[in-house]
Amino acid sequence: MGALRLPALTSIFTSSSSVRSSPAIFPLKRRLRLPLRRPFSAQSTTEKVVAPELGDGKGKVVDKEKDRVITPRSQDFNAWYLDVIANAELADYGPVRGTMVIRPYGYAIWEAIQEYMNVKFKETGHSNMYFPQFIPYSFIEKEASHVEGFSPELALVTVGGGKELEEKLVVRPTSETIVNHMFTQWIHSYRDLPLMINQWANVTRWEMRTKPFIRTLEFLWQEGHTAHATAEEAEEEAMQMIDVYTKFAYEQAAIPVIAGRKSRVETFAGASTTYTIEAMMGDRKALQAGTSHNLGQNFSRAFGTQFTDENGQRQHVWQTSWAISTRFVGGIIMTHGDDAGLLLPPRLAPVQVVIVPIWKKDNEKAGVLTASSSVKETLQAAGIKVKIDDSDQRTPGWKFNYYEMKGVPLRIEIGPRDVSSGTLVISRRDVPGKQGKVFGISMEPSTLVAYVKDKLNEVQSSLLERATTFRDSNIVDVSSYDELKEAIAQGKWARGPWSAGDEEESKVKEETGATIRCFPFEQPQGPKKCLMTGNSADEVAIFAKSY
Amino acid sequence: MGALRLPALTSIFTSSSSVRSSPAIFPLKRRLRLPLRRPFSAQSTTEKVVAPELGDGKGKVVDKEKDRVITPRSQDFNAWYLDVIANAELADYGPVRGTMVIRPYGYAIWEAIQEYMNVKFKETGHSNMYFPQFIPYSFIEKEASHVEGFSPELALVTVGGGKELEEKLVVRPTSETIVNHMFTQWIHSYRDLPLMINQWANVTRWEMRTKPFIRTLEFLWQEGHTAHATAEEAEEEAMQMIDVYTKFAYEQAAIPVIAGRKSRVETFAGASTTYTIEAMMGDRKALQAGTSHNLGQNFSRAFGTQFTDENGQRQHVWQTSWAISTRFVGGIIMTHGDDAGLLLPPRLAPVQVVIVPIWKKDNEKAGVLTASSSVKETLQAAGIKVKIDDSDQRTPGWKFNYYEMKGVPLRIEIGPRDVSSGTLVISRRDVPGKQGKVFGISMEPSTLVAYVKDKLNEVQSSLLERATTFRDSNIVDVSSYDELKEAIAQGKWARGPWSAGDEEESKVKEETGATIRCFPFEQPQGPKKCLMTGNSADEVAIFAKSY
Repeated sequence: MGALRLPALTSIFTSSSSVRSSPAIFPLKRRLRLPLRRPFSAQSTTEKVVAPELGDGKGKVVDKEKDRVITPRSQDFNAWYLDVIANAELADYGPVRGTMVIRPYGYAIWEAIQEYMNVKFKETGHSNMYFPQFIPYSFIEKEASHVEGFSPELALVTVGGGKELEEKLVVRPTSETIVNHMFTQWIHSYRDLPLMINQWANVTRWEMRTKPFIRTLEFLWQEGHTAHATAEEAEEEAMQMIDVYTKFAYEQAAIPVIAGRKSRVETFAGASTTYTIEAMMGDRKALQAGTSHNLGQNFSRAFGTQFTDENGQRQHVWQTSWAISTRFVGGIIMTHGDDAGLLLPPRLAPVQVVIVPIWKKDNEKAGVLTASSSVKETLQAAGIKVKIDDSDQRTPGWKFNYYEMKGVPLRIEIGPRDVSSGTLVISRRDVPGKQGKVFGISMEPSTLVAYVKDKLNEVQSSLLERATTFRDSNIVDVSSYDELKEAIAQGKWARGPWSAGDEEESKVKEETGATIRCFPFEQPQGPKKCLMTGNSADEVAIFAKSY
Repeated sequence: MGALRLPALTSIFTSSSSVRSSPAIFPLKRRLRLPLRRPFSAQSTTEKVVAPELGDGKGKVVDKEKDRVITPRSQDFNAWYLDVIANAELADYGPVRGTMVIRPYGYAIWEAIQEYMNVKFKETGHSNMYFPQFIPYSFIEKEASHVEGFSPELALVTVGGGKELEEKLVVRPTSETIVNHMFTQWIHSYRDLPLMINQWANVTRWEMRTKPFIRTLEFLWQEGHTAHATAEEAEEEAMQMIDVYTKFAYEQAAIPVIAGRKSRVETFAGASTTYTIEAMMGDRKALQAGTSHNLGQNFSRAFGTQFTDENGQRQHVWQTSWAISTRFVGGIIMTHGDDAGLLLPPRLAPVQVVIVPIWKKDNEKAGVLTASSSVKETLQAAGIKVKIDDSDQRTPGWKFNYYEMKGVPLRIEIGPRDVSSGTLVISRRDVPGKQGKVFGISMEPSTLVAYVKDKLNEVQSSLLERATTFRDSNIVDVSSYDELKEAIAQGKWARGPWSAGDEEESKVKEETGATIRCFPFEQPQGPKKCLMTGNSADEVAIFAKSY
């Protein structure tokens, strides 16, 4: 049966009407036609040459073209990352240094994140709203550590409508200051509390070293802002939201983050406590993937955000803020991707299943396409995000590689023999070659839907499991600074008891490049001694190099 | 039965736990507690006094408090508009002149617009993506009429990361330039076309005269951008999108817009043709509520956006762009609102039905609340956006007025007698007093759901009908400049044949304050003579004063 799977050299005829007329939910076709982007795979070549692809005799296609496109991950992680982003058409560079254009396929991942988060935020009592992005410069100066943290990164508007402005305006790097300015007008009594809001917005930070999704001059995020009557409520809220993020990371993104508290040095500028989720990327560097801050009364004191309590006393509100950003998309790429390209967790994949119809002879085509369409409709009706690629321009082999590179979790192949037998073939993106391939799955709708849903869940779990194993095998428990240094030198994360001061923490950073990522919520029992000072320690900290 | 409807003076006891613990989809409670905002209704007064409200003997509550809060629409349309926005908590002023904070209730209307539009955009083949908001100044200068139109309105970033920038950056006023810069890199051959994208974003225009929602320094919008191989396809796309907007206005917003083509003078800076939907506000001024531009090859020539056609020839792409913005929310307010406040079309209302439980004696409370909750669940399960206000802090009469002011289309009242008889009372927001009130509706779920859905549809249609009648009775057919002047002087729209030049158009503007809103798509048959010159004319134009 393997022979049937060999790619056929199909005609290069173009049906120019197909894109415009089909109201595809996610019209990938258009992108398929864009030439692959690598300096050495010149556009004219990739456009004109449909390489006569070769089978390796085992049903696996060797695509000479593709091998040149993406740098192997093991060879150069950074080059691989940039190649994946370019070739999977997730993002592109904007004309201004450090800015990024988020292309439809990358944006669709962000939309999947938004969709999930929006529901969770509303379930936990938050309303969306929108604050202006221009903030008077004087606002930023009101909270001492906030201005210290953000002033080097500000973009300033100094001219408006052709005139020099009297007060320069900050393009929002985060909104605590303007939020407090407004909260002060809306909050009067304890009956106005808690006030719990969220906004989806763009933010600007003038970063020097940028990297698509991970760190860009402008990025997209959500920022939650809440005000409470008591310190306890604010703490509960900050913890609730880091918990929402943690669940999202595990259950949707299949990223086994470690949740915990930031050290004082790493705490958000203006916060009393910062909670974080830290993810281990494929190169074992840490990525701060989301944060939730207990702001205490720092901003309410700076802005005079007060309420009258039940006893008629004026009090400052207790606040939180919390955010995740388009950086998370970078985290997904760097957690799951492999040499073949992107690998998306099914729950966030813009396309969960791609159907590749396969025919050699013209008289086979109609039957194969009809069966493929009907399978597509069946899956779509069951709420599965499915795409069919019936283009004549590319061989099945090219398509296999293309959708593997795009990280589509499942591929369905339907050929003439499948049509006769009423079956199809399903391949898992996360299990390469024959092992991930199952033949003879029935096309009968209820069987097929159940099977595909099962498989998607399997892929989802297996990605989480794989990432968890990887993470755990790369965290080393250390009890001395020497052990810490060795672990970091090996590219691993070091976990060890820590009760030393800010100075020692800075020393570790200087000498090893690693920082305290967090004091994880999950702590080992028993007495501990600080790895640096030998003094008794309450907690272990995790040290790692990070993005 | 009217007596039962009289508001009871309930206790002022506060259940402080109710807000936080209930995962309300749209937690209005919090806002309810905010004091009404008018200089002369001092906060301390409105907070402490629950006015002993009086019935007028017809079941209609006279609320002395409320009368003071919103300026009657007929008295001062502009003051009324600002009062509605403040009291319904739709928006607030930001700290920077001309900026606006969109509060949760206002933002929820925008979200309803987004939800509908997103589906339509995807159905018509567009993908969402995101372009950076910082645009090199040189980009804006590339298209001659574009720079002329936008340069007076630009906000410029001149400092980034503490340093003066070499090239100042424009904060996006619209994205045609940066879109073309990127399209030029993505489009190579006819196979890359059409390229059809959309983005939801904030934009900045340094406006001198601002008004919440209608014209603000920063606003939210969607901007669609497409590139096509032929002029015909671009024209078809521009028309398709103005049609999407028109349908939205009629079917969702109940606004009977007039769709048509802009005059050359009023065409978007950089477009070949601009299509528009023009809405008549309650004060009979016109509001441009959405536009769709056929950009021709203006931007593709300025940016060199070319493709190789099927014959191997290099061609410039043909383009469109189209947008609606948060301005539409202002249009909804000014179309449907009345002296009582906001009036929202059910299809865009964040809360479609509010349930007000009514009890006098403590022993009635439990039964009324249980019945109310069960009704709420029934409606919610049927996909109706429903809110229950069971707070002890306000009288039913206060609540009636409050939700009328908030524009909630339907109100359900449930009192002890209703509980006994298994019925409830429904009032329509758009039909005041007894006339809009129906007693004895069965609580039986299937009956109730059908009834409520019917009523919501009735309100929706009736709003459209009312607005259409209003519009049509305020458009005057004119055949001379004198008639035009008279119509405009009466505050009406003038429709008349027009084939005069740009100069005459400017003269009309100078002398009457009215501009050509559009040449409507729907044109009267037969020969026409220009109202200004007496020359033969192909079309009638609509003149009006506008926002």
